[in-house]
Amino acid sequence: MGYTKRVEIRWRDLDGFGHVNNAVFLTYLEEARDEFYTGLLSHDTVNQMVLRHTSVDFRRSLVQSDDLVDVGLVVIQVGTSSVVTRETITSSATGEVAAVAESVMVHCDQARERSQPFPDEPRRLLEAALEQDAKEGD
Amino acid sequence: MGYTKRVEIRWRDLDGFGHVNNAVFLTYLEEARDEFYTGLLSHDTVNQMVLRHTSVDFRRSLVQSDDLVDVGLVVIQVGTSSVVTRETITSSATGEVAAVAESVMVHCDQARERSQPFPDEPRRLLEAALEQDAKEGD
Amino acid sequence: MGYTKRVEIRWRDLDGFGHVNNAVFLTYLEEARDEFYTGLLSHDTVNQMVLRHTSVDFRRSLVQSDDLVDVGLVVIQVGTSSVVTRETITSSATGEVAAVAESVMVHCDQARERSQPFPDEPRRLLEAALEQDAKEGD
Amino acid sequence: MGYTKRVEIRWRDLDGFGHVNNAVFLTYLEEARDEFYTGLLSHDTVNQMVLRHTSVDFRRSLVQSDDLVDVGLVVIQVGTSSVVTRETITSSATGEVAAVAESVMVHCDQARERSQPFPDEPRRLLEAALEQDAKEGD
Repeated sequence: MGYTKRVEIRWRDLDGFGHVNNAVFLTYLEEARDEFYTGLLSHDTVNQMVLRHTSVDFRRSLVQSDDLVDVGLVVIQVGTSSVVTRETITSSATGEVAAVAESVMVHCDQARERSQPFPDEPRRLLEAALEQDAKEGD
Repeated sequence: MGYTKRVEIRWRDLDGFGHVNNAVFLTYLEEARDEFYTGLLSHDTVNQMVLRHTSVDFRRSLVQSDDLVDVGLVVIQVGTSSVVTRETITSSATGEVAAVAESVMVHCDQARERSQPFPDEPRRLLEAALEQDAKEGD
Repeated sequence: MGYTKRVEIRWRDLDGFGHVNNAVFLTYLEEARDEFYTGLLSHDTVNQMVLRHTSVDFRRSLVQSDDLVDVGLVVIQVGTSSVVTRETITSSATGEVAAVAESVMVHCDQARERSQPFPDEPRRLLEAALEQDAKEGD
Repeated sequence: MGYTKRVEIRWRDLDGFGHVNNAVFLTYLEEARDEFYTGLLSHDTVNQMVLRHTSVDFRRSLVQSDDLVDVGLVVIQVGTSSVVTRETITSSATGEVAAVAESVMVHCDQARERSQPFPDEPRRLLEAALEQDAKEGD
């Protein structure tokens, strides 16, 4: 369902507790979103999308031996100039969910400053993804 | 009001857009929380506190010339085993708010796995901080 | 020849020039060394090895579209308590060498503080790797 | 002697051993060089300088309680299109040297690709810094 991006955990991702640091979770989410949006929309459109909000529930810590995580992503809302995704970080080793997140991206002008409605084509593609994810989620 | 931690922006904090990357915002928040909790509570108690949830509103991008950020923090809720803080990242150069966040820390057992009520002393200190922040917030 | 570890470039690895930041090159090298040493030696031995020296020649910049790098590693010297590797970071997309490095790891006591000769078994394994790499390098 | 930049250690700088990760040392060095070159030369010149080589001797590990490091920098060589600095990372808490490094920056064309001689003015300034550092080093 939706899109999945596999990311390899690096030693540098851990902090002094031996766990993947909380900030690195946002990097994992970003890797999934980047690849999802880049695959779906034009380079220009993606470059004008800015992260406006993110919220993360940390469920379990990740350690070096988890080795890989799968970041799943579904589109849950498409607005005039924004799109909301729900993202899940799962340990590939254990299948356990490490975090669940929601992220709002806003389409902006070229200066990436003010929000601006999606052009028709990307909007159509995002709505198709939303519909597809909703169907599969049933 | 509350606690403020100044953090210097590093060149490494920027990403390919020339803005401080979203994941680095969590690092700025963590620096403020770490220093706040370490100043208030014992080392052992802080080591048993785990970030359970965070949500961030990104308001403005930060660039190298912002140079420094001030991360403000107030306690907004204290529970049996959890504490919620509201955090604000402000450009020291411009005074503009770059992000507003809320973070939930949970007090856990020594293995940092299961939640466990705060002992009396840290709970008392957190409630005093909460009361102080509420008063100053009036 | 030697060992090769593939690492995926992350958006977070770039800096404000749109290039993979120089510090991240050390992370790529570390990923290769960690996997090489972990595959060859016991967990305990690897945990007692400390990076003592590294030197890096930066030949070409890496960008997001390089996507993946291959970090090649050969053992070039084995001493009583140290091992030297030569490492090469190559863009998987273009085959161009981005950096060539040399790293010295020192085997230490359990506190990871003072150097201590390799036990017989790891030393034998490192010398076998050295010999193998030298042969293939001919 | 030379230039000194103070950098605060962040919790995110540590890795699973509880020590500042080796890659972060390059970030500390970069902070010092950036500030030194930006203070001495024009923005345009600094933007055309690219790190070509770095070598680092790791002498002691840094931990959270070191809190701050002082990164000292002296110019040790100025060429037609390159400048070499020697850098020292010292724990502000203990005064102990954690690392000694040497870095070669090359002045390039605007595309940051091919080396190009320094214009007269920056070259004169770099040579003055070299002379000053040599004098103070006596």
